[in-house]
Amino acid sequence: MKKETYAAAVKKTLEFFAKANIVLTKEEQNNIEIADFGLNNLDIEGLQIVTYINTDRVCSKEMVLFPNQTCPEHKHPPINNTLGKEETFRCRYGKVYLYVDGEKTENIKGLCPNSFYTVFNEIILNPGEQYTIYPNTLHWFQAGDEGAVVSEFSTSSNDESDIFTNPNIKRIPTIE
Amino acid sequence: MKKETYAAAVKKTLEFFAKANIVLTKEEQNNIEIADFGLNNLDIEGLQIVTYINTDRVCSKEMVLFPNQTCPEHKHPPINNTLGKEETFRCRYGKVYLYVDGEKTENIKGLCPNSFYTVFNEIILNPGEQYTIYPNTLHWFQAGDEGAVVSEFSTSSNDESDIFTNPNIKRIPTIE
Repeated sequence: MKKETYAAAVKKTLEFFAKANIVLTKEEQNNIEIADFGLNNLDIEGLQIVTYINTDRVCSKEMVLFPNQTCPEHKHPPINNTLGKEETFRCRYGKVYLYVDGEKTENIKGLCPNSFYTVFNEIILNPGEQYTIYPNTLHWFQAGDEGAVVSEFSTSSNDESDIFTNPNIKRIPTIE
Repeated sequence: MKKETYAAAVKKTLEFFAKANIVLTKEEQNNIEIADFGLNNLDIEGLQIVTYINTDRVCSKEMVLFPNQTCPEHKHPPINNTLGKEETFRCRYGKVYLYVDGEKTENIKGLCPNSFYTVFNEIILNPGEQYTIYPNTLHWFQAGDEGAVVSEFSTSSNDESDIFTNPNIKRIPTIE
């Protein structure tokens, strides 16, 4: 990711947090994670993240999706004799189209960004609504036209071990 | 707790969540937990809680403290071969005076409600600031003059097993 892309995305992310009335410390504002998944197409597939806490047992993040932006399909497998990550997404602002493994929903509302998407059981989250994803469950999610702010409550997060359906994805970004 | 006390506290709690721009579902609004700890003195010692999620592994709550209200001193011991509850408090609105086991702070800002308080290491949380409490650590917390809204991110919550310093406390309330 280019430095300018990163800086512009951080600015936009802070605007969404402000819309959702999420207060961040200066340090958090200076450490926004912009994940483009190595695809170089941030506005289509990407995610913006503030990690509040991530210990061996508990993790909590606040995430921004830009309008119609998608967090690509992935799952959290068991690692090091633990069960794998369990996570609850709670929509704070905007609308989230969430897709999980299970019965395919006909005429889904989201727009599949490419062919690396395989699960289509649709859950729609409006502000105040939430959904829990248990370990090893394929899932992806997309914001509606206004973008979205989503809180995540989970067990320990170890992004490096996530398994993405798209083999071209690199979860940990590099800034040029 | 009397039914009228409960209803009035729920109304006040919803006003604080609105001030902090926290969106709740109707179901959550109808299930606000008002904890008076069996002390019948809610405005002095009490806590208002919405539990978003509480599984075997992860818990997240949104809590309201009325102005100058105190959540009484307690700790989360190991239970059933687990380590005990680890929790992070993140202030979303107002000011929180948090006291944990450790070196006593001189001239604390909070007002000790009675003599059942024994730890005085002071941490002050403004909006966006947070603190993590590890298992088996005595702690209590109090809102400033404006009240407070606090997010909690934690391991599984099992309130019945909390150990309070005040032996008169009953954690699980009864509504008359």
